[in-house]
Amino acid sequence: MLLEKLRAEVLEANLELVRRGLVLYTFGNASGVDREQGLVVIKPSGVDYDDLRPEHMVVTDLNGKIVEGNLNPSSDLDTHTLLYREFPAIGAVVHTHSEYATSWAQAGLDIPALGTTHADYFYGPIPCTEPLTDEAIGGRYVHETGVAIVKRFAGIDPMAVPACLVAGHAPFVWGKTPDDAAHNAVVLEAVARMAIRTVQLNSLAGVSQSLLDRHYFRKHGANATYGQKS
Amino acid sequence: MLLEKLRAEVLEANLELVRRGLVLYTFGNASGVDREQGLVVIKPSGVDYDDLRPEHMVVTDLNGKIVEGNLNPSSDLDTHTLLYREFPAIGAVVHTHSEYATSWAQAGLDIPALGTTHADYFYGPIPCTEPLTDEAIGGRYVHETGVAIVKRFAGIDPMAVPACLVAGHAPFVWGKTPDDAAHNAVVLEAVARMAIRTVQLNSLAGVSQSLLDRHYFRKHGANATYGQKS
Amino acid sequence: MLLEKLRAEVLEANLELVRRGLVLYTFGNASGVDREQGLVVIKPSGVDYDDLRPEHMVVTDLNGKIVEGNLNPSSDLDTHTLLYREFPAIGAVVHTHSEYATSWAQAGLDIPALGTTHADYFYGPIPCTEPLTDEAIGGRYVHETGVAIVKRFAGIDPMAVPACLVAGHAPFVWGKTPDDAAHNAVVLEAVARMAIRTVQLNSLAGVSQSLLDRHYFRKHGANATYGQKS
Amino acid sequence: MLLEKLRAEVLEANLELVRRGLVLYTFGNASGVDREQGLVVIKPSGVDYDDLRPEHMVVTDLNGKIVEGNLNPSSDLDTHTLLYREFPAIGAVVHTHSEYATSWAQAGLDIPALGTTHADYFYGPIPCTEPLTDEAIGGRYVHETGVAIVKRFAGIDPMAVPACLVAGHAPFVWGKTPDDAAHNAVVLEAVARMAIRTVQLNSLAGVSQSLLDRHYFRKHGANATYGQKS
Repeated sequence: MLLEKLRAEVLEANLELVRRGLVLYTFGNASGVDREQGLVVIKPSGVDYDDLRPEHMVVTDLNGKIVEGNLNPSSDLDTHTLLYREFPAIGAVVHTHSEYATSWAQAGLDIPALGTTHADYFYGPIPCTEPLTDEAIGGRYVHETGVAIVKRFAGIDPMAVPACLVAGHAPFVWGKTPDDAAHNAVVLEAVARMAIRTVQLNSLAGVSQSLLDRHYFRKHGANATYGQKS
Repeated sequence: MLLEKLRAEVLEANLELVRRGLVLYTFGNASGVDREQGLVVIKPSGVDYDDLRPEHMVVTDLNGKIVEGNLNPSSDLDTHTLLYREFPAIGAVVHTHSEYATSWAQAGLDIPALGTTHADYFYGPIPCTEPLTDEAIGGRYVHETGVAIVKRFAGIDPMAVPACLVAGHAPFVWGKTPDDAAHNAVVLEAVARMAIRTVQLNSLAGVSQSLLDRHYFRKHGANATYGQKS
Repeated sequence: MLLEKLRAEVLEANLELVRRGLVLYTFGNASGVDREQGLVVIKPSGVDYDDLRPEHMVVTDLNGKIVEGNLNPSSDLDTHTLLYREFPAIGAVVHTHSEYATSWAQAGLDIPALGTTHADYFYGPIPCTEPLTDEAIGGRYVHETGVAIVKRFAGIDPMAVPACLVAGHAPFVWGKTPDDAAHNAVVLEAVARMAIRTVQLNSLAGVSQSLLDRHYFRKHGANATYGQKS
Repeated sequence: MLLEKLRAEVLEANLELVRRGLVLYTFGNASGVDREQGLVVIKPSGVDYDDLRPEHMVVTDLNGKIVEGNLNPSSDLDTHTLLYREFPAIGAVVHTHSEYATSWAQAGLDIPALGTTHADYFYGPIPCTEPLTDEAIGGRYVHETGVAIVKRFAGIDPMAVPACLVAGHAPFVWGKTPDDAAHNAVVLEAVARMAIRTVQLNSLAGVSQSLLDRHYFRKHGANATYGQKS
């Protein structure tokens, strides 16, 4: 069986989304990529989480062609593979309909950087795509979802802002590893919860650029000081 | 004992509503219909969920006449039976006072189709009835509740929009089976939660018709592609 | 030991409030009255719920004089005893700072009757008192809290509306028995949650009088039809 | 090993924050001070709560110089130590990103005293600092966070209002002991939840000074009457 370790990591990320309350029924999926072999491991479509085993994961190439597995891959596969092709630094993708991030997506709004919890993970607003056109929806819809994300990230480093809201739909989140992507999805949901309440309290100012810099670079990059030296 | 399998399914649907947090105390009920025999199986009224057993279910005909059972049926029986008579495609009905759907019902508002989670299950807004007239309330009230639902569904396929909000009251939800109806009730509540937050974020646009089509028909109908081929 | 059965019921009601999430730390208390003996059983003040035993309950007369018990009674005792003296039909009183009912109390607003969940338990708006005057606050404050409730209930049957919000403070709830009062407190909190969301959805109309009548009298009074004949 | 008892208390306070849902991942820290020895015990940075043991706590002097411990102290150490130096009556400090208090902090708003739950713990509004200047953020940022808190408390007794919101960031809370500080952080979050809902219900009046006095001094100071005499 190909990619045993990555299968286990992808399964664990899928289960973490459930444990953290980000997934209702089967409304979510996580995948990971092996960059050396050019292979993607992704959750199968519509299988109960309780029944998921590493051997149920589906292995495809970067164009979504199935290489190993008897089950249908997640119906969002074409979005995942496009993100892997276009964002070479990412190692895993997570998609959920987590309720607060989805509410922002349904409103068609970026989540502004309103505090340091946001700044610790996302170096700037969490972008929301343009609504998909009727042509895109009627065409290769799942692929076009990825196209909308990539287009929205023109000029944005996907590793500095590891999430995107798809307008009228829900978030896609990524990271270096499946565990990292799931972790980012959990933080995104917390940030989305706090942002709606902040907006309700009528603050529209956001944090200053300097506070954003200070918090983000305390946890990221060459000069990060947070946590233990490993 | 009549309809042992359906009794078990109806009981299980009732318990699922409790497990999912849709029911406080005994504020809910589920039923199922056997179309061949023309018999309805429904939860008894006001019995604690912990004590419910398949043999407590009440069996009635499609006019609500008790065929088997010593307990009073749910006080909402006449709504259930009317829905079975008027909507021949449905196989089960669920009623809860789940809090977010009920808030929309209390506001007297349809839940607009604001995103793909909605579109995956409901092909259009989830309708809210007109308020019942004083005559209807003072008359055969429970029956009239069903009448209001049926009236509101003029021109709407109940299998494409398997839920209705009763103004000032709460949702009625249906499906092919008791399990399916309970599942739809859970999704309705999640959709209701996200919709109020989306509205708070000042989006009133809704999703486009093409996105609604794409998501709904991905999971429903002859061309559905979601999940595993069975 | 006096009133063993009532002690157990009062303890159980206190614990039910905790299990239902209505009480943080020790922010709540429940009591019951034995009308024949003219004695009140109430939770002691500031004791952890985990440690509460029937023998810790404090027994007082209807004026709050301790008859049995070594611990201080709840600091809200004088409100409880005043309610027992003024509302002869009630058998138990519950006080919590449950968060949604308290939010309405803090806003100084009655909870309007916006739906049938409300109407099933409360025959009209749940009243909020006037703010206590500085004189009342500086005087026999706990007693004056009860005075404000009684004053607000002029013309309202306390058994038809078994709860009152104290402005700037929190709810007091009552019932026939400790179990009944705790049950009403749980429903009040659910009603308060739904009402704020309904108001947010911009419905200010409330249910019609006829719907209020229909639901309330389906569960209460000589013509009640809900549940099993006992 | 220094300060075994205080290490255990600090660990327990950190765990209590997790159990009460105030901390996501490692977004929180608690410390305690031994005033006689002039030593601070604080959580290490970025260690999973499941793995935390008393021996992992880091001991520093009041200027943050490590006296015992091999792990990096919490990245917020300089805020804690400044608070210990400037507020001599406090014995413990807690920092979380608890979501409702953080939403108020992100909005840059004091939490007004809207009810007696607040008044039982906080004698007046819970202040929010000014936003940090770019110079402060670019300089000794963690130290400057403490400076902003101390500046905001000019004329406020930190033992009467044991919490401060840092604008755009999150709350710092303190108390006599680590347990007390964690308790205050839990109550702050409940107060923050109720306050936003109260504001949504359009009450902007707050409680009267006399009600604030009555509730606060019922639990605090020489004339406190709440709880059991110890």
